[in-house]
Amino acid sequence: MFPKSFQKLIDHFSSLPSVGPKMAERLVLYLFKQDQAKLDDLSKIIGDLKKNIHYCAQCFNISENGLCSICQDKKRDQSLICVVEEPLDVIAIEKTRQMRGLYHVLGGTLNAPADKNNALKINELIGRLKKNPVKEVMIATNPTTEGEATALYLARMIKPLNIKITRLARGLPTGGDIEYADEITLSGAIEGRREM
Amino acid sequence: MFPKSFQKLIDHFSSLPSVGPKMAERLVLYLFKQDQAKLDDLSKIIGDLKKNIHYCAQCFNISENGLCSICQDKKRDQSLICVVEEPLDVIAIEKTRQMRGLYHVLGGTLNAPADKNNALKINELIGRLKKNPVKEVMIATNPTTEGEATALYLARMIKPLNIKITRLARGLPTGGDIEYADEITLSGAIEGRREM
Repeated sequence: MFPKSFQKLIDHFSSLPSVGPKMAERLVLYLFKQDQAKLDDLSKIIGDLKKNIHYCAQCFNISENGLCSICQDKKRDQSLICVVEEPLDVIAIEKTRQMRGLYHVLGGTLNAPADKNNALKINELIGRLKKNPVKEVMIATNPTTEGEATALYLARMIKPLNIKITRLARGLPTGGDIEYADEITLSGAIEGRREM
Repeated sequence: MFPKSFQKLIDHFSSLPSVGPKMAERLVLYLFKQDQAKLDDLSKIIGDLKKNIHYCAQCFNISENGLCSICQDKKRDQSLICVVEEPLDVIAIEKTRQMRGLYHVLGGTLNAPADKNNALKINELIGRLKKNPVKEVMIATNPTTEGEATALYLARMIKPLNIKITRLARGLPTGGDIEYADEITLSGAIEGRREM
């Protein structure tokens, strides 16, 4: 029912995460109404996306240079590495300003590597720890089955290196409601209770 | 915190309807993980979007040719024109298979023209009706304040041409629940009640 090139862009957008066919139609119609200059700009940025951005050679976070800005920052705590699944996790943790160490981005979990073309950067992490020993590895994979399995696997791999391994606390989310907390979260909160 | 070109694309996506900054981040990260070939394809389609698609010269629906496929279809009822706000409304109505006439796409409503570069195609509609008189104009603008105002204005403009003017029925949506219907919808349903 749509012109072909229109339908092609709808298909492209529908393949994006959290974008359904209806929303894709709306997005395409919206773009169609924009100035050609804006479309050209968007077109160029998308085409060049991978050309201008690479993975950091050390932590595999996204970066414009060989080393990302965090790895280049000598003021950060070089003895602490926080292991996360995705670059967006780095952003989220950086926003807390609580983590002053370095990162290591796995690129997914054991069962679900996010990037099919790249294996998880686990060997790279072990190699990095062997080359530059650190005091602590903070495992910040998601509190999901896959994230948990990956954390356990990583802990087993790192153990022989005699490095302190920590995991983000599990418990009730701030602002949450005990009444509505699921059983597993509540169990975790009880198990991990701290003295006041 | 993001590389510059990354941030630029996030800004672009955030400006799209129903896309928040968080979702834009996720979309960009998703795209970054795609093959360059897919990005090139997407980039090209977006750059060429307006080049391959125009507005139909007669009904102002989106079209790959001078006249859209509906206006070109001689089997359709040439004596009925359905007036809608947007091309997506044409798609929605076509899916019902209840409208066998032609369309006229206004490009928005009186107070909110969707495309700032183009005025509403009201003069074009009147011109079209004068050139090729029809039996009925079905006004299918949205049942909103703006859509209603536009419908009333159109009706006043078309009246002197002695053409039957109809408006889509207002009432309870099928599958809806009277208990949860808002007062205005329910009032409209009572007012428009039909004999059984």
